[in-house]
Amino acid sequence: MPKLTLDELHALAVRALARAGANDDMAAATARALVYADGRGLASHGVSRIAQYAAHLSNGRADGSARPVFAAERGGAVLIDAGFGLAFPACALAVAEAIRRAHDFGVAFAGVTNSHHFGVAGYHLEPIGDAGLVGLAFGNSPAAMPPAGGKRPIFGTNPIAAIFPRQRAAPLLVDLSLSAVARGKLMVAAREGKPIPLGWALDRDGSPTTDPQAGLEGSMLALGGAKGAMLALVVELLVTALTGAALGFEATSFFVDDGNRPRLGQAFLAIDPAALAGRAVYDERIETLIEAMTADPAVRLPGYRRDALAGAAAKDGVEIPPALHRQLIELAGG
Amino acid sequence: MPKLTLDELHALAVRALARAGANDDMAAATARALVYADGRGLASHGVSRIAQYAAHLSNGRADGSARPVFAAERGGAVLIDAGFGLAFPACALAVAEAIRRAHDFGVAFAGVTNSHHFGVAGYHLEPIGDAGLVGLAFGNSPAAMPPAGGKRPIFGTNPIAAIFPRQRAAPLLVDLSLSAVARGKLMVAAREGKPIPLGWALDRDGSPTTDPQAGLEGSMLALGGAKGAMLALVVELLVTALTGAALGFEATSFFVDDGNRPRLGQAFLAIDPAALAGRAVYDERIETLIEAMTADPAVRLPGYRRDALAGAAAKDGVEIPPALHRQLIELAGG
Repeated sequence: MPKLTLDELHALAVRALARAGANDDMAAATARALVYADGRGLASHGVSRIAQYAAHLSNGRADGSARPVFAAERGGAVLIDAGFGLAFPACALAVAEAIRRAHDFGVAFAGVTNSHHFGVAGYHLEPIGDAGLVGLAFGNSPAAMPPAGGKRPIFGTNPIAAIFPRQRAAPLLVDLSLSAVARGKLMVAAREGKPIPLGWALDRDGSPTTDPQAGLEGSMLALGGAKGAMLALVVELLVTALTGAALGFEATSFFVDDGNRPRLGQAFLAIDPAALAGRAVYDERIETLIEAMTADPAVRLPGYRRDALAGAAAKDGVEIPPALHRQLIELAGG
Repeated sequence: MPKLTLDELHALAVRALARAGANDDMAAATARALVYADGRGLASHGVSRIAQYAAHLSNGRADGSARPVFAAERGGAVLIDAGFGLAFPACALAVAEAIRRAHDFGVAFAGVTNSHHFGVAGYHLEPIGDAGLVGLAFGNSPAAMPPAGGKRPIFGTNPIAAIFPRQRAAPLLVDLSLSAVARGKLMVAAREGKPIPLGWALDRDGSPTTDPQAGLEGSMLALGGAKGAMLALVVELLVTALTGAALGFEATSFFVDDGNRPRLGQAFLAIDPAALAGRAVYDERIETLIEAMTADPAVRLPGYRRDALAGAAAKDGVEIPPALHRQLIELAGG
């Protein structure tokens, strides 16, 4: 498999995105987020997305000339309008504002509207952790899951991420979507001809199914049944009712070329421990919890496998499947 | 069964709590929260708790003379010290501060430390909804669930609640704990001699079990497996690292009389839609979502069953089991 350094991969991604019509800021911010994912073993949210983004930039589902602007602000609250561009420049501005406002006001909420796919939710929180702040991220996505008791998809898989920085170690970084499992698990089961457990998906008629293909044509289920569907409702409203963004069921899937401007929403919270119990108390509490958790050697801290992969990728580069590598070179104009 | 009006139940609860040593504010705030629960069919968090609270007030696990005080503040962020009292006066002060600060700064985070059992999480959000704000509530509780991959309880069942007010209808009110099921379901299965599904509990050695009694002696599992355990970690840190409160595994169970001062933590977020996309956009987005959800008649809106019960209880009163009624009268001094 072709192996590229992260710098080489970044440069290739920037060229491909720029050639599809992204302005310089958008191409750079997007490439940075995608290469972050590839460096952490999250290939489904890495440069493999560029063909999709490029198609949307070409057919108008995303506007390559967009620059994020301030739509509203008061104290710790700010709303950024992504202007139908790719999500990453708007999310970066929202996060920078959240950090600045959390320092001034103790807590900040930065929403993003008229946005697009925001990739790995936890990526956006890294600067919040670097600033010594606690961060939360939320986003919606095209409808994939029904509400509690429902039969038709209404909510996206609506990721939640959280970062808790540590004094002398990498931050804890939680990052999860609210579906019971990723769609990819159904694809694998369908390919292997294996059944899936009840609780993963509904078929097209809204009935529980163990047939992965029927599930792919129906809807995903939220983790933990009705409770997870309620959490998906909370995320959906946080990132749409507060921002004006489109609801998951109003947005066309990312995985087709044609469709509408998804106009999805994101939101970031930043909280300064120094404004509350103070930095020393924060450090003591988090280390006491981690000590108790890791007394059991089977417990993994969230984010640490990613960090180990990132260290290796920074040193050795990442392998890119040959077909994807050829596609990227073609999108980049050779 | 004895039937009491909500006013009669409130007066009885106040007398019982005051007789156990709660000051006037604490008795009134606590009674209000417990009667709210009983009026909404949530008897496990209603006046049935008074005997437990009274025991803790008597043996010093809770300080009946405590009054909540400000421990820190900056802009939208504020920390309230409950002073080892029952949780309710401190939570009420935190919520009032969150509302005031969200109006001033767009968003507010109010933490509570050195606290106790805070009952129904969603109860605390009602004033936030009444003020036209979006609210979130978090709390930890004595350890009941292991972290992802772990065998011993570390986290509480750590409730999350959210309120989204509506212009011409009662607010959406989501309120859930992060365990796969409530402990009460294991108690019922144990009584009936029925097995429980895998995924509900671990036995004392940390192995998955279908034996409800073994589960009661072991630990509860988080909803959705590892993802739910990660959400429990997030809640645990939000309410302890930012507030200085005790971690779930540091607090003795509420269900025994003897033990330490639990010193648990709570946190409330309030966000003003008017500081972001604005009230009109907020109203349109939430009603559009609700219309899509309720197009399927099987979908229930969160909080609406509770509201219907509350309406009936306000009119007709609530039935209290005879043994509980006798116990309350005895605690109230006859």
